[in-house]
Amino acid sequence: MMNYMLKDENAIYYECGYSCDNALYLSLGSEAFFITDSRYTIDAQDHVRGANVVIDGDLYGSAVKLLKKAKVRKVIFDPKEWSVAGFEAISTKTKVHFKAMPDFSHKKRIIKSDAELKIIAKAAKLGAKAFSVLAKEFNKKGFGENEFKLTYRAKSILSGLGKYDLSFDPIVAINANAAKPHATPSRRKLKRGDLLLVDAGLKYKRYCSDRTRTVFAEKGFMFKTEQSFSKKKVQKAYDTVLKAHDRAIAKARSGMKAKEVDALTRDLITKAGFGEYYVHSTGHGVGLDIHEMPYISSRSDTVIEDGMVYTIEPGIYIPGEFGIRIEDMVAMVDGRARVL
Amino acid sequence: MMNYMLKDENAIYYECGYSCDNALYLSLGSEAFFITDSRYTIDAQDHVRGANVVIDGDLYGSAVKLLKKAKVRKVIFDPKEWSVAGFEAISTKTKVHFKAMPDFSHKKRIIKSDAELKIIAKAAKLGAKAFSVLAKEFNKKGFGENEFKLTYRAKSILSGLGKYDLSFDPIVAINANAAKPHATPSRRKLKRGDLLLVDAGLKYKRYCSDRTRTVFAEKGFMFKTEQSFSKKKVQKAYDTVLKAHDRAIAKARSGMKAKEVDALTRDLITKAGFGEYYVHSTGHGVGLDIHEMPYISSRSDTVIEDGMVYTIEPGIYIPGEFGIRIEDMVAMVDGRARVL
Repeated sequence: MMNYMLKDENAIYYECGYSCDNALYLSLGSEAFFITDSRYTIDAQDHVRGANVVIDGDLYGSAVKLLKKAKVRKVIFDPKEWSVAGFEAISTKTKVHFKAMPDFSHKKRIIKSDAELKIIAKAAKLGAKAFSVLAKEFNKKGFGENEFKLTYRAKSILSGLGKYDLSFDPIVAINANAAKPHATPSRRKLKRGDLLLVDAGLKYKRYCSDRTRTVFAEKGFMFKTEQSFSKKKVQKAYDTVLKAHDRAIAKARSGMKAKEVDALTRDLITKAGFGEYYVHSTGHGVGLDIHEMPYISSRSDTVIEDGMVYTIEPGIYIPGEFGIRIEDMVAMVDGRARVL
Repeated sequence: MMNYMLKDENAIYYECGYSCDNALYLSLGSEAFFITDSRYTIDAQDHVRGANVVIDGDLYGSAVKLLKKAKVRKVIFDPKEWSVAGFEAISTKTKVHFKAMPDFSHKKRIIKSDAELKIIAKAAKLGAKAFSVLAKEFNKKGFGENEFKLTYRAKSILSGLGKYDLSFDPIVAINANAAKPHATPSRRKLKRGDLLLVDAGLKYKRYCSDRTRTVFAEKGFMFKTEQSFSKKKVQKAYDTVLKAHDRAIAKARSGMKAKEVDALTRDLITKAGFGEYYVHSTGHGVGLDIHEMPYISSRSDTVIEDGMVYTIEPGIYIPGEFGIRIEDMVAMVDGRARVL
């Protein structure tokens, strides 16, 4: 039987249905242990399933004791998940052989269960709905406001006024600021006729949604994929991104390698002459983490399978001018990509 | 000359005035390098000071190349800051001797410069102002709302409606929920005559503020330190916490050990009979991180010096009944603690 130890909050949640920001999880043969400090005693005892709750301010010391007692020989850990200091606090105190398995938990989580798919679909639906509400709010109050204020409005609406956590800080970027794929808000104010990019998501039962729309911010605009920009160059880039987005969704198949899915967007954008402005990969898996496996990049040999959930989000970024990205989440069902 | 490598976002910001969530910083003799991926090219080139900007999706590979080229022998790193995987991606590819120095960057940052002190003072002032606004808001709309909604209102106001980042998720806790030092919001609604604890802070130019007030939530309440509770036991605990808080601020001196400052609050609370309910240390340093050095705990031998900034936040927590904490930030100036 496999032994492993986890430190990441979401990796632990996946195992036992509860987690917090100071926890350590040990799976040793047929027994499992959830270790946390006394601040979380009540919550842990109420919610942890299938593991013994251990309350100890010294998580690492407690793990060492349990490892010694269980007399296990080999324990798997993810070296991306553990700090050098945390890992050494355990590894130097026991004679266990620690086997590094990068992405150990993410690999376990790459195929979503039906129950997970339902939760993620709901997260995506709530995320999409928030974009509709946001469009109305921006139309009413957004023009004349700067990116900071617009980002704040996006946070308020995405969170359902405090009801949901956000998947990440939303990106609300105007014109040239949208040319930065990870734009940070500026004092630039939204004017009629601007290009507006919004990338945002919320969490439902701890699972993330993720969505991007780029629009021509004219009176009565909506975050739909059909858009008419006033500038020809922008429209050409937009149409290219949309075609690439639609093509990947239509042609992605279970059994393909992730890099083949990436090529579905990349080849089209490159042929249209924008290849150098497409500076990131086609997408990423989404689940408890906003970025997880599979990574839809030109270097990934991961084979796409039914039950995987990932984003399709091609983009074109012309520095100093504008940026365009269109992003949807898909789940692989019956061999094909179904938009969530 | 000292060589070191950094991975933490704030540690890197401190060196070069810019950072992002995917960066690596190398200081090699007289040269420094800021490595990030292409999403951050424009911002990095615009804002990084005193370091060469290197754009490379493979941060670790890029660091290895630079380390080989520079032919350095010894490089310092903080084992708390580096993942096992990140550290090994570099350490196994070079013959450099890597010296583990826990809290390397935090130690550099423990004495604030005059420029930093000004920014932190401004953060504290904005934080205090937000508490005033929050009191008005709670008086107008807070009674009858649950902790989730009150927390949301606190976030909105602290952030200046999106203008500022928050130092951390604010704590808004009523009666018995305030007895958990890290309370998470519940469905409990605020009623007149409740005890209300608010712990919150915002960031100004990336530096944090941190402040806690505990109040008797009667009509027209304010977040001031003079409070009259209806229950004698609560008032006694409150008066004890306030005396401990005031005593530490009045008597803290540069040259004292951190544990001597801690004793200023702990001795008083213990003598009043509440020692077992004071379950945390007196305070922590504040800067780019919300928790940094010096730690004002009963075990810390750190010598307090002019230019240090930390919190004084004694508390008494009676499980199932109530919790009280009063927190202010102080800067050591001319040998004494000045409240920010």
